[in-house]
Amino acid sequence: MGKDDLDGFNLEQSHGKERVRVARVWRTKEGYSLVVEWKVGITLFSDCLPAYVNGDNSDIVATDTMKNTVYVKSKECAEQLSAENFAILLAHHFTSYYKPVTAAVVKIVEKPWERVHVINEPHEHGFKLGSERHTTEVSVKKSGSIKLVSGIEGLSILKTTMSGFEGFIRDEYTALPDTRERMLATEVTASWRYSYETLSSVPQDQLYFNERYLEAKGVLMESFFGPPKGGVYSPSVQSTLYHMARAVLNRFPDISAVKLKMPNIHFLPVNISSKENPSIVKFADDVYLPTDEPHGSIEASLSRFWSRM
Amino acid sequence: MGKDDLDGFNLEQSHGKERVRVARVWRTKEGYSLVVEWKVGITLFSDCLPAYVNGDNSDIVATDTMKNTVYVKSKECAEQLSAENFAILLAHHFTSYYKPVTAAVVKIVEKPWERVHVINEPHEHGFKLGSERHTTEVSVKKSGSIKLVSGIEGLSILKTTMSGFEGFIRDEYTALPDTRERMLATEVTASWRYSYETLSSVPQDQLYFNERYLEAKGVLMESFFGPPKGGVYSPSVQSTLYHMARAVLNRFPDISAVKLKMPNIHFLPVNISSKENPSIVKFADDVYLPTDEPHGSIEASLSRFWSRM
Amino acid sequence: MGKDDLDGFNLEQSHGKERVRVARVWRTKEGYSLVVEWKVGITLFSDCLPAYVNGDNSDIVATDTMKNTVYVKSKECAEQLSAENFAILLAHHFTSYYKPVTAAVVKIVEKPWERVHVINEPHEHGFKLGSERHTTEVSVKKSGSIKLVSGIEGLSILKTTMSGFEGFIRDEYTALPDTRERMLATEVTASWRYSYETLSSVPQDQLYFNERYLEAKGVLMESFFGPPKGGVYSPSVQSTLYHMARAVLNRFPDISAVKLKMPNIHFLPVNISSKENPSIVKFADDVYLPTDEPHGSIEASLSRFWSRM
Amino acid sequence: MGKDDLDGFNLEQSHGKERVRVARVWRTKEGYSLVVEWKVGITLFSDCLPAYVNGDNSDIVATDTMKNTVYVKSKECAEQLSAENFAILLAHHFTSYYKPVTAAVVKIVEKPWERVHVINEPHEHGFKLGSERHTTEVSVKKSGSIKLVSGIEGLSILKTTMSGFEGFIRDEYTALPDTRERMLATEVTASWRYSYETLSSVPQDQLYFNERYLEAKGVLMESFFGPPKGGVYSPSVQSTLYHMARAVLNRFPDISAVKLKMPNIHFLPVNISSKENPSIVKFADDVYLPTDEPHGSIEASLSRFWSRM
Repeated sequence: MGKDDLDGFNLEQSHGKERVRVARVWRTKEGYSLVVEWKVGITLFSDCLPAYVNGDNSDIVATDTMKNTVYVKSKECAEQLSAENFAILLAHHFTSYYKPVTAAVVKIVEKPWERVHVINEPHEHGFKLGSERHTTEVSVKKSGSIKLVSGIEGLSILKTTMSGFEGFIRDEYTALPDTRERMLATEVTASWRYSYETLSSVPQDQLYFNERYLEAKGVLMESFFGPPKGGVYSPSVQSTLYHMARAVLNRFPDISAVKLKMPNIHFLPVNISSKENPSIVKFADDVYLPTDEPHGSIEASLSRFWSRM
Repeated sequence: MGKDDLDGFNLEQSHGKERVRVARVWRTKEGYSLVVEWKVGITLFSDCLPAYVNGDNSDIVATDTMKNTVYVKSKECAEQLSAENFAILLAHHFTSYYKPVTAAVVKIVEKPWERVHVINEPHEHGFKLGSERHTTEVSVKKSGSIKLVSGIEGLSILKTTMSGFEGFIRDEYTALPDTRERMLATEVTASWRYSYETLSSVPQDQLYFNERYLEAKGVLMESFFGPPKGGVYSPSVQSTLYHMARAVLNRFPDISAVKLKMPNIHFLPVNISSKENPSIVKFADDVYLPTDEPHGSIEASLSRFWSRM
Repeated sequence: MGKDDLDGFNLEQSHGKERVRVARVWRTKEGYSLVVEWKVGITLFSDCLPAYVNGDNSDIVATDTMKNTVYVKSKECAEQLSAENFAILLAHHFTSYYKPVTAAVVKIVEKPWERVHVINEPHEHGFKLGSERHTTEVSVKKSGSIKLVSGIEGLSILKTTMSGFEGFIRDEYTALPDTRERMLATEVTASWRYSYETLSSVPQDQLYFNERYLEAKGVLMESFFGPPKGGVYSPSVQSTLYHMARAVLNRFPDISAVKLKMPNIHFLPVNISSKENPSIVKFADDVYLPTDEPHGSIEASLSRFWSRM
Repeated sequence: MGKDDLDGFNLEQSHGKERVRVARVWRTKEGYSLVVEWKVGITLFSDCLPAYVNGDNSDIVATDTMKNTVYVKSKECAEQLSAENFAILLAHHFTSYYKPVTAAVVKIVEKPWERVHVINEPHEHGFKLGSERHTTEVSVKKSGSIKLVSGIEGLSILKTTMSGFEGFIRDEYTALPDTRERMLATEVTASWRYSYETLSSVPQDQLYFNERYLEAKGVLMESFFGPPKGGVYSPSVQSTLYHMARAVLNRFPDISAVKLKMPNIHFLPVNISSKENPSIVKFADDVYLPTDEPHGSIEASLSRFWSRM
């Protein structure tokens, strides 16, 4: 947030518009529709102290105006583009068009509309909603310097075996037994920082970041699951997370940092007993109780030495 | 609900357990894991008036016991089976095992865990969550008569064109213009009743209803979208819904009724104007505002003459 | 839903608009603002078979028109009125204004905006959101006959003691011990049917049903909790539910039926043990694990002999 | 997160347990029950690089153990205490008990169970759920230094008048007219930092922070609404937010910084027109469309010169 001094107080502030939803349709020469649906969040950092202190709004960009801008600018995009490129375009607009605006952050979550296939052919104008979502967060300063982060949310994956957890600290509060056989389930929230630091250095191809998104998701999943036959053993969520992040950095030179949040969503072994019947259900790697609450929370970011998330 | 007379009052009541979650893993000889995750809801109808009136619980099946039964019975299933078959098995157990229980309803929602492919091969034990969900609701009476309903929830689909709405009633409250070109988006909740009316008439194949689910979903989608080239024109959600339901009945002789809820999830044309600028954004079938609230609600059930949902 | 025959098929159908949100402000002579915020759902039953079968919309009331009507009609209300009265007004409008409409159902959920007190005085125009919500569902037929149901949703209540559950069926699936001391928590969904059966018989006072709502909520809570000193013992959710419903019927002659859904939201006794430490936590009516999933589901309706929900 | 260097990579990581729910009941000598329900989140920062890199868990505190600790420690609390005090107790335990743990963050959200009154008397053991929630986030380092932040979430408030927005930037993207009369609605998320910086400096009274919570909420609301007669004019959310934050700092010497998130939840004036009927509904400060999406987002923190959130 922007910072201001104020007779002994500091004010840090920002304002913006959240949950601006827009869908944009393009038609190709071949008769195919292309569609994206984005939920856009905008945050502006600006010199507008008088609005807070004196009720003087003369340096305020109305949040309603920000919303309108999303629609104007999406209309101006004559060709399909990635969420990253649209976010850059918007953030650049706000910082260059408005004098008081010193920096802008634009976040986009893209709904996963996927072209359907009917009778094994791609449909001209039919789409179905998929599951995990492509996200991006772009920060642009008036100077033209940028920070570009992309990611995934809602990627729920599990493996039924080749996971364990043992050798951890045992003390008077510990009840969990060591195991080399458990379910491993998580809902991955991933984000990765691209190394582009100025507007002018960003790749020209308007769909470049869509490809990167698919590739990065593929690398994360391959690293989580291992080979189709046999998989790969996970000694902890921590270890699996680390190798997933490392695989992304090893593969993509223009990604400088990766952050992964991987809650451990527990599939509890089911054992039920009573005084009368000590073995109503006895677990044998077969019956599990999936639960969202509580869950382990493991998160980490891995970055090249000269970078940070 | 069961009904009772009570000095001038009628009591209709039921009790059960909701949100019982279970995951069941099987291993094939070839080394593949199979996994299902179900959320089970159980409702029992039983003669237990004294519990309500006199605080006498002697005819009450504890809801905790119902929960345990889900785990015991899932363990007893040595081979993979459909949600429908598991629901029948449970409901039959409750009505046959407990004297006071006159009828049982079991609902299951299956999480769409889908086997992942790594390097174009199916993974032995890796799964990813998909989108729409397979549901079932089974009612079983002590007599052995059953009602078997299956369905889909969360099937979000849209087509970017080949949809219109015109010629409806115009009056002093009407603002919507006629159109032959709009987006059509909906989140389908479908259910269909199978014609099996006794426990003994249900197909023996324990995965029969999983296949039917996939086939029925396919028919609904083909009917919604039409051919890959050109699609099919929708003059209203009502019309599209009707032809989807009819296609299912025409295709599957053992389905006797179909119910579809198809909210009209609006993608509003974006037009923005002000006194100073009458054309900030002018719609040209390109920029839409998707909104969940409010939405049209269209629902209907179509059944063979001798049946009902 | 309306029913139609169709070369061997039956069609039952309805259409409407859901989640229409409206806020209405009135100002009193004394300078106070009054405000209601309603979420309105409308369902119309109408003769409009050609829309389904032939794509002929000439008998269709557009759902957009229904939405507009909510705003027009709320504007026409010059004085504050209850959600029940507004729902009746809307439903009556749809059935009397449109020839094809044979019946209408209007549901309203009212947001619990409560006037704030500042320095112990009621504020002229300040409001804060409370918790449980007043609901209503009104069905009106073209003939003028009505069904009027009101209720509460989201009423979360608990008592820390004076609750038990014992003497239920014990069998090989039972693990729950008998107890005379447990937490009892639930989120009540209540609905009650008023005995008015025609538009003309409904009380004239436009705020009558708001008072009834508060009174009925009071009776339900008094019956759940018992006297401030000592409370009242609950031998089961079933028993408590029955006495709550009975108290409402005994108190209000113009309520003919009551329906209560009272999930048993479990506060599990916490006992934690391991092989090494059999008593990490040993329960002594002090530490509980509250959980939403799974939950018991107990519901019943109690009605006067000549009525039904 | 803790940081580590790793052949050219930096690793920042943490792990913990989220959504640990606990309810604690105490009984007073006078026969009253006291109850709190907390949702606890724990994050540990620790030296456990080998877990990530080598699959060696020997320095890992299992998240299951963290969960157990919540129950053990809540049991050890013989008297009622504030969420702040419980969070401090837990965080201090983790940093002092475990050698690898360098810092701990504990977050608690308290469910607003409020004692009910029956026949105008406080009930011995009956509670009802209110609306907004008391929150806290405590960070403790091994050294004993702490950061203590408390707050409110879910405080939904509105005023029907005495709010405007005018004089903001007008440009080609602007459609919003100036106004001196609008609804102002928001859902406040507030947090404030206490100035205590070591474990030993925290007030001894175990309910001190509960009182502060109620007082701070009172100050925020009084500042938002103004006097019961006439209120106070709001020229923008920014201005109102600033004066609310300032009022808290002015009132409480041991609060060093305040952060407020106050989304502008729009109640849109309803105007509906069509070609045929230019005035289906014409707004006159009476009928509004409340909407959650999109919303303005205004947030700021105000701090004493020597402090920061």
